[in-house]
Amino acid sequence: MSATATAQSNVTSERVFNFSAGPAVLPVSVLEQLRDEMMCYPGAGASIMELSHRGKVFVEIMEQAQSSLRSLLNVPDTHEVLFLQGGSALQFSMIPCNLLRGSNKTAEYLVTGSWGKKAIAEGRKEGDVTATFDGSTTNYDRVPKAGDYQTSSDAAYLYYCSNETIQGVQFQSEPEAPAGVPLICDASSDFLSRPLDISKYGLIYACAQKNAGPAGVTAVIMRKDLIDKGDAGLPGYLNYQNHYEADSMWNTPPTFAIYVLGKITRWLLDDIGGLEAMKALNEEKSSMVYDVIDANPNFYKGHAQVDCRSKMNVTFNLPSDELLSKFIKEAGEHKLASLAGHRSVGGIRASLYNAMPREGAQALAQFMSDFAAKNG
Amino acid sequence: MSATATAQSNVTSERVFNFSAGPAVLPVSVLEQLRDEMMCYPGAGASIMELSHRGKVFVEIMEQAQSSLRSLLNVPDTHEVLFLQGGSALQFSMIPCNLLRGSNKTAEYLVTGSWGKKAIAEGRKEGDVTATFDGSTTNYDRVPKAGDYQTSSDAAYLYYCSNETIQGVQFQSEPEAPAGVPLICDASSDFLSRPLDISKYGLIYACAQKNAGPAGVTAVIMRKDLIDKGDAGLPGYLNYQNHYEADSMWNTPPTFAIYVLGKITRWLLDDIGGLEAMKALNEEKSSMVYDVIDANPNFYKGHAQVDCRSKMNVTFNLPSDELLSKFIKEAGEHKLASLAGHRSVGGIRASLYNAMPREGAQALAQFMSDFAAKNG
Ligand SMILES: Cc1ncc(COP(=O)(O)O)c(C=O)c1O
Ligand SMILES: Cc1ncc(COP(=O)(O)O)c(C=O)c1O
Ligand SMILES: [Mg+2]
Ligand SMILES: [Mg+2]
Ligand SMILES: [Mg+2]
Ligand SMILES: [Mg+2]
Repeated sequence: MSATATAQSNVTSERVFNFSAGPAVLPVSVLEQLRDEMMCYPGAGASIMELSHRGKVFVEIMEQAQSSLRSLLNVPDTHEVLFLQGGSALQFSMIPCNLLRGSNKTAEYLVTGSWGKKAIAEGRKEGDVTATFDGSTTNYDRVPKAGDYQTSSDAAYLYYCSNETIQGVQFQSEPEAPAGVPLICDASSDFLSRPLDISKYGLIYACAQKNAGPAGVTAVIMRKDLIDKGDAGLPGYLNYQNHYEADSMWNTPPTFAIYVLGKITRWLLDDIGGLEAMKALNEEKSSMVYDVIDANPNFYKGHAQVDCRSKMNVTFNLPSDELLSKFIKEAGEHKLASLAGHRSVGGIRASLYNAMPREGAQALAQFMSDFAAKNG
Repeated sequence: MSATATAQSNVTSERVFNFSAGPAVLPVSVLEQLRDEMMCYPGAGASIMELSHRGKVFVEIMEQAQSSLRSLLNVPDTHEVLFLQGGSALQFSMIPCNLLRGSNKTAEYLVTGSWGKKAIAEGRKEGDVTATFDGSTTNYDRVPKAGDYQTSSDAAYLYYCSNETIQGVQFQSEPEAPAGVPLICDASSDFLSRPLDISKYGLIYACAQKNAGPAGVTAVIMRKDLIDKGDAGLPGYLNYQNHYEADSMWNTPPTFAIYVLGKITRWLLDDIGGLEAMKALNEEKSSMVYDVIDANPNFYKGHAQVDCRSKMNVTFNLPSDELLSKFIKEAGEHKLASLAGHRSVGGIRASLYNAMPREGAQALAQFMSDFAAKNG
């Protein structure tokens, strides 16, 4: 890696197709805006990073980010949009701290992979929890069907992770929570990849660094009547009510990350045309790759059961460790980068988030076909 | 404010002198690097924001940020450097959660302004706390002298805020803690403005958005033997040990903010020449402004007692609300921006952080002189 800054005009040609699971690929047109506004946000006399969060310019950026997120997802007035720090990992704790602690109820978790496991471990610190479904018996290769689990109508909440980033299993639609039981969703890795009916959720959250922006901001969309449940004795940052009352400015928000998130939501609205269009493109991209897996069943072994396959993270393995290394090496030579699976499961993981262009999925599918033909 | 992106080549000339208290001015040369590396970090094939935090390129950036911070401050091996989310406000809680909760001791706080008040309120949730010094009786216009307070040799820790950003009062040197009592410092608004003897501190921390980078990352420098004191039942994100063991990658760190912080530390080392040089420049800049206040004692009323004046945040008032508004308006016309004091105290606050050039302080001092002559 050379430390010399490359001349701006030709660096775009050096860009690779980046299949990282997060932080992850961003739209080129958004990066161009960030570059062009870096020295001076238009009309502000300073970079966006230098502006007070309480000043007119940033308050407007914050409001635009919130309102374009609301219109993308059709967020009803019953729900608030918060932008927080601490990543999704802090939500693993904030949720039970606010909605379980002191409630004398049990929180139910559908554990379908690594992130659900981490979330339930944090929940356990704050009260009674139970793994209503636990996918570990089949090595987290699927999500439950409606009949596979039973939820108590007295649960504190029903928690699930819509897309397990590491295993590559995804709920195709929301699980159903009994009336009165808030449905809580970790949508970190498929947020904004498809339309959602937000009215079904008590709380849904996503760290930005997969589909919504850079690492450093987490969007939380929460039913307002749940906000008031927290204990005043909680560490202030962990109390949703503080952030709600201060419009996500209880303390200094991560201004640059929110600004980028705002740009991404505008890109989704204006360039992509909304979440139905985004969903169609994501289905097209992931199908290209799954089709190669299915066409070469003796060579590529998909991890997820077919009806639980993730449109975001395609996980599969090769016949041997040698072929796996060779695959990653040769892919790199084709400018297909960051394909190694998570260190906990190995294999290949190709993340095809919103900003991965069709051409990237196409190039990967072609490479996979050729590689299987040569090495199968 | 025009939403049209201004052509890149001439925006620098639109930049104002930005006296914001935070997020705050950044070095132009750093912003230029961020702009030039935005589309593609040299050799990485992607923007820094798109790179996995576990990949070689970002791990190197993280290590460089840690090591240049260590060399700037001469951090001894007894201390660890962590980069966290949640701002300084989360440290208000993490400190007592880890170092007070369950200890049967009392934590002592020197409360010299608004930030100390907020910190002690969070401490109170976790155990016994006492305000060993409370500046409220003189409207927070000073910090205590050694004889002004008595610390118990059995305290959980002695906490203070080295620079109260809102009131503009600053400790000129560390208060002394009894042997065995960890000294804890909120250095959010004067971090890296002068050399420090880190060996004196149990823990010292600073959100980046004043002197060290953009909002979204907080540097915590902590004696290693204190890291292990936390309770395993704490929310995972709030346990220092988790972050220590994972080298600040317990979860996804705010990669872009850390990258910028790394650039700022390099600027301090290479362009400024280290913290002694930075301190001299900061003294020169703040003297220019205080000299005008002292030369016009019937017009400008400084808030802080003279020997407690902050080199970072110069706070003063004018003879009337009309003159205050006029001052802010006319300053704006001279490209001197963000001078209004914090909404809780009013008046003027001129923040002269590291990245404020000498010319900015000079322009402000000249404007203040002229304004007093015309309106006094
Ligand atoms: C589904 C899911 N949940 C939670 C996380 C944790 O997010 P963070 O690292 O921001 O805490 C991730 C990814 O990192 C994720 O993919
Ligand atoms: C001295 C001091 N402490 C704490 C804070 C709070 O920091 P944050 O907003 O990042 O929580 C600030 C400024 O905002 C500050 O100036
Ligand atoms: Mg409450
Ligand atoms: Mg609101
Ligand atoms: Mg411990
Ligand atoms: Mg280390």
